[in-house]
Amino acid sequence: MTDESTILAANAAFYAAFSMGDVEAMACLWADDDAISCIHPGWPAFVGRIGVVGSWRDILENARSPAITCHEPHAIITGDEGRVLSIEMIGPLALAASNHFKRVGGMWRLVHHQASPIAKAEIHASSDPFRPAGQIH
Amino acid sequence: MTDESTILAANAAFYAAFSMGDVEAMACLWADDDAISCIHPGWPAFVGRIGVVGSWRDILENARSPAITCHEPHAIITGDEGRVLSIEMIGPLALAASNHFKRVGGMWRLVHHQASPIAKAEIHASSDPFRPAGQIH
Repeated sequence: MTDESTILAANAAFYAAFSMGDVEAMACLWADDDAISCIHPGWPAFVGRIGVVGSWRDILENARSPAITCHEPHAIITGDEGRVLSIEMIGPLALAASNHFKRVGGMWRLVHHQASPIAKAEIHASSDPFRPAGQIH
Repeated sequence: MTDESTILAANAAFYAAFSMGDVEAMACLWADDDAISCIHPGWPAFVGRIGVVGSWRDILENARSPAITCHEPHAIITGDEGRVLSIEMIGPLALAASNHFKRVGGMWRLVHHQASPIAKAEIHASSDPFRPAGQIH
């Protein structure tokens, strides 16, 4: 298996745990130290095992959590560090997501996750300070 | 100087280049390869030197770009990899930001940037799928 296929498999495992509400699987996917962080949509950062895993427990145990799917995953790997960029769909919402991994004992473990709403329909020339052109996705 | 002080200095240089509209300084802060990526608020990912640096050129050369300031920077470092989490203020908008660095030749170079709007005032129990508690910031 290539580095790309193994990191994409780890990324798929993240979305499987997310969509199935599997708190224990989610906890195991994250690196087992406090150098982890997570920024959920609309929220400031969580840092460390207790904060990050606790935030996922709160989300996954919420019966109202909608279905999530991952689209267009794109892996970028440098040695034992890597990240997967993708588009998350949560119900009708689209988010630009990044999952950052480090390889520990041959396993890709999450060290950072961040998802940002993509709200093109809400962007207006008069209010949007960011109007770059030519994005990849 | 400690690793923390040097990565925080690199992070400060990023916001200095941003606030001064210094395209060349911004370009130099990013790692000099295509394993870089950037997710601006509301936009899908840019990947690679041309895409990422081009997106910053578009933003920084936009005379309408508002002032930006960085608050509560928090560094997480593991060897030659590190990230700085902070709150960005762009005009009245607050964003949760992460700047991801790798150390190359003794210099911290950016490999990923992502900023996500923090919109607590817009979050309602009926529509927000994410309601974690206990975030750090």
